[in-house]
Amino acid sequence: MFSIAAIAQSIIPSISTLPMPHTFIATMESESAPIILSGVLLTLIVIYLASKIGSEIAKRLDLPPVLGELVAGVIVGVSALRLVIFPEGGFTAADSLIMTILQSLNQLTPEAVNHVFDQQSEVISVLSELGVIILLFEIGLESDIRQLKEVGIQAFVVAFIGVIAPFAGGTIGLMYFFHVAAIPAIFAGAALTATSIGITSKVLAEIGQLKSKEGQIIVGAAVIDDVLGIIVLAVVASLAKTGEVDITNVFILLISAIAFLFGSILLGGIFNKTFVALVSSLKTRGNIVIPAFIFAYIMAFIGNAIHLEAILGAFAAGLVLDETDARNELDELIKPVADLLVPIFFVTVGAKADLSVLNPTISENRSGLLIAGFLILVAIMGKVITGWVVFGVPNVNRLAIGIGMVPRGEVGLVFAGIGTASGAIDKPLEVAIIIMVILTTFLAPPFLRLAFGKTSEPPAGGELATE
Amino acid sequence: MFSIAAIAQSIIPSISTLPMPHTFIATMESESAPIILSGVLLTLIVIYLASKIGSEIAKRLDLPPVLGELVAGVIVGVSALRLVIFPEGGFTAADSLIMTILQSLNQLTPEAVNHVFDQQSEVISVLSELGVIILLFEIGLESDIRQLKEVGIQAFVVAFIGVIAPFAGGTIGLMYFFHVAAIPAIFAGAALTATSIGITSKVLAEIGQLKSKEGQIIVGAAVIDDVLGIIVLAVVASLAKTGEVDITNVFILLISAIAFLFGSILLGGIFNKTFVALVSSLKTRGNIVIPAFIFAYIMAFIGNAIHLEAILGAFAAGLVLDETDARNELDELIKPVADLLVPIFFVTVGAKADLSVLNPTISENRSGLLIAGFLILVAIMGKVITGWVVFGVPNVNRLAIGIGMVPRGEVGLVFAGIGTASGAIDKPLEVAIIIMVILTTFLAPPFLRLAFGKTSEPPAGGELATE
Repeated sequence: MFSIAAIAQSIIPSISTLPMPHTFIATMESESAPIILSGVLLTLIVIYLASKIGSEIAKRLDLPPVLGELVAGVIVGVSALRLVIFPEGGFTAADSLIMTILQSLNQLTPEAVNHVFDQQSEVISVLSELGVIILLFEIGLESDIRQLKEVGIQAFVVAFIGVIAPFAGGTIGLMYFFHVAAIPAIFAGAALTATSIGITSKVLAEIGQLKSKEGQIIVGAAVIDDVLGIIVLAVVASLAKTGEVDITNVFILLISAIAFLFGSILLGGIFNKTFVALVSSLKTRGNIVIPAFIFAYIMAFIGNAIHLEAILGAFAAGLVLDETDARNELDELIKPVADLLVPIFFVTVGAKADLSVLNPTISENRSGLLIAGFLILVAIMGKVITGWVVFGVPNVNRLAIGIGMVPRGEVGLVFAGIGTASGAIDKPLEVAIIIMVILTTFLAPPFLRLAFGKTSEPPAGGELATE
Repeated sequence: MFSIAAIAQSIIPSISTLPMPHTFIATMESESAPIILSGVLLTLIVIYLASKIGSEIAKRLDLPPVLGELVAGVIVGVSALRLVIFPEGGFTAADSLIMTILQSLNQLTPEAVNHVFDQQSEVISVLSELGVIILLFEIGLESDIRQLKEVGIQAFVVAFIGVIAPFAGGTIGLMYFFHVAAIPAIFAGAALTATSIGITSKVLAEIGQLKSKEGQIIVGAAVIDDVLGIIVLAVVASLAKTGEVDITNVFILLISAIAFLFGSILLGGIFNKTFVALVSSLKTRGNIVIPAFIFAYIMAFIGNAIHLEAILGAFAAGLVLDETDARNELDELIKPVADLLVPIFFVTVGAKADLSVLNPTISENRSGLLIAGFLILVAIMGKVITGWVVFGVPNVNRLAIGIGMVPRGEVGLVFAGIGTASGAIDKPLEVAIIIMVILTTFLAPPFLRLAFGKTSEPPAGGELATE
């Protein structure tokens, strides 16, 4: 049928208060469609208000705006107001103020409101994923593939040491100081490895350091780091499961990562001219953004499909299009789209951070807190030292590079989740990993800014943006 | 927990091929998250490709691009390729090529792939709803509240006659020529009433006629029409149900519609300065778009919550912000966002149009086709005559106004759906209504363009955009 479903929302609410026979209610599968839309609209209003208030306060305190968005997310999220919560946290519609409002506005049954809650949460989750995809697309557009190639070796060394050091330090330390068994110690060590590209690159962009040598080393290293992290996870997960490593799977991952990376760079050379020719031949609205987003989404899909990450594909797409003549125009067009989607990602990250794990009155948390202290130390030291392995680049801000690699955010939590679910790690160790991720994520932005601001060495190439 | 859910998608696919115990699978609620993201990405790629190919071909044939998007939607939708289909049409994941690809890529069970199908369909539906919200927000921004007030009386008369004439003509004609009983005849007559604001205003914008006197009368009338249509639906639905009209409900709807309309205009005067002051005091990225979208979403939510429509709220928000000094900048910023979201709406509308109702070899369709012919005649005539009731506007293109009111698209289908579900109308009558909606929707854009292009009278105020 034409559209009873998607279009019904325009009218159904007006009659939902009329008495209807059950057959009607039953056939009207999408009766909840306008209510799901209302839920999404309310949640987006809360997210946008939080993001703007948070980033503006952070800016006035001379902190990175993204830190303000994360903290604002914590305030509207599971830890405080519980306006933005998700079913994965074990919540139902009854825990959400937004759902309670919708329920009383529309006289919904508890089942109907839970259905609305599930669906609107999924929509917000996907919007937040599209947000980080567009963020990495934008970062790719703002990165310079030539400069990335120039610092490629340095970035690789930084990434490699930044994976080995915290992994070894964490695993060995847990086994010797805390008498943790080998498998859980390896799991926790692995959780210390991967840097969050999203948070680091956003801060770099905000302080005008994305195009500095340091910025490009950090972004390059964070990308490689992410790939290494995925491989480490594959190794550790199979180790925890069967006691041995699934070499084939690791090998496939490694090959597809390398093929993807070099494939994109090669493709870039060919695709550039095609893209510009295509864009200039189009005559209807969206002639630049639509082809650009088709390309970005295809690359993100491939990244996802070959079991890497959607954001790696989006970053590669941005790098490729950065080489085209259309890039300045594209930069301008993507800004408002990014401004609307990226905050959904950061506020959601904050909203999902459950700070109750920091509460020392809960006994499980107490033993976790001690281990957490150790993990945070290793997490910070293991990454900060990477700045000093950079060679051949004069006058580089080594501290800034090291601090740039500190925020974990994404992958660390996946380790914690999988570790707990598979029974490889216990509750205190999981709590410790979560605390480590939260603190490195929230502490890195202000320190990264300090490290760049206080630099006594002149920045390489004089590219320091004065903002 | 921090984010196992939303963040898991970054890593989970890489291990989903490893053998995992059932406890792990069970606790990993969001294992399908990256697959849902993949589904959304693939569907968006198809929608964007269809929208660009369709609109470019239409443009080259000198037809309105939006018609190309609708037709491209038909081709990728339920009637042909079935790439973009929705569970509400009675489809499961097995009917969708995209889902089949995802299933084989990720070795999903039939239950898992159906879950992915449901969730990704919901996400696309909400994105399409956000698309039409942003379209109406943009139309509001491009409309001039002063000019709308000037033509307010004309718009009201056009809307009123455009509701009465097809309603009376359809109901009486069905009863006398086709011997249809009173209640189904009233239902079908009511389905002929409301104009689709989205399609009409998009075509007006495309041919540069949005700000002409004719354009503003059409937009104003379409908005009033929509409100009248909602009231007619409430009346007819309660009549079909209980045999009498629920006066209280109709009265509440009428009052809230009037309060909402005048409230927005009043608010506009106060809110203008606040908005500009707020925007200029913000110092972080998104200082204009985020407050504008907060406002648009709040208005859309209110429109939805008082049982009117989200798009009416978005249109009102656009009208209010059109008065501010920030409007030119806002216009520019909203364009790329609209370019990315609006095509999702039009392609989805096309994709949901099931053209198999036009197949005369099915007997149900045959009797429907005869009635459909009559309904189409009444639907077109009943709206086209409204151009001639406009008074006091010299040199106005009356034919263009009448044709501008012809496309139904949205509300008519809701009538058909509710009528069938409540048992008030039978299958042939439902088919006839659906055919009427499809044809008026697809025929109006080229004819509207012709009516403006062929005008022998000079356009009022010389505002005719020559494009």
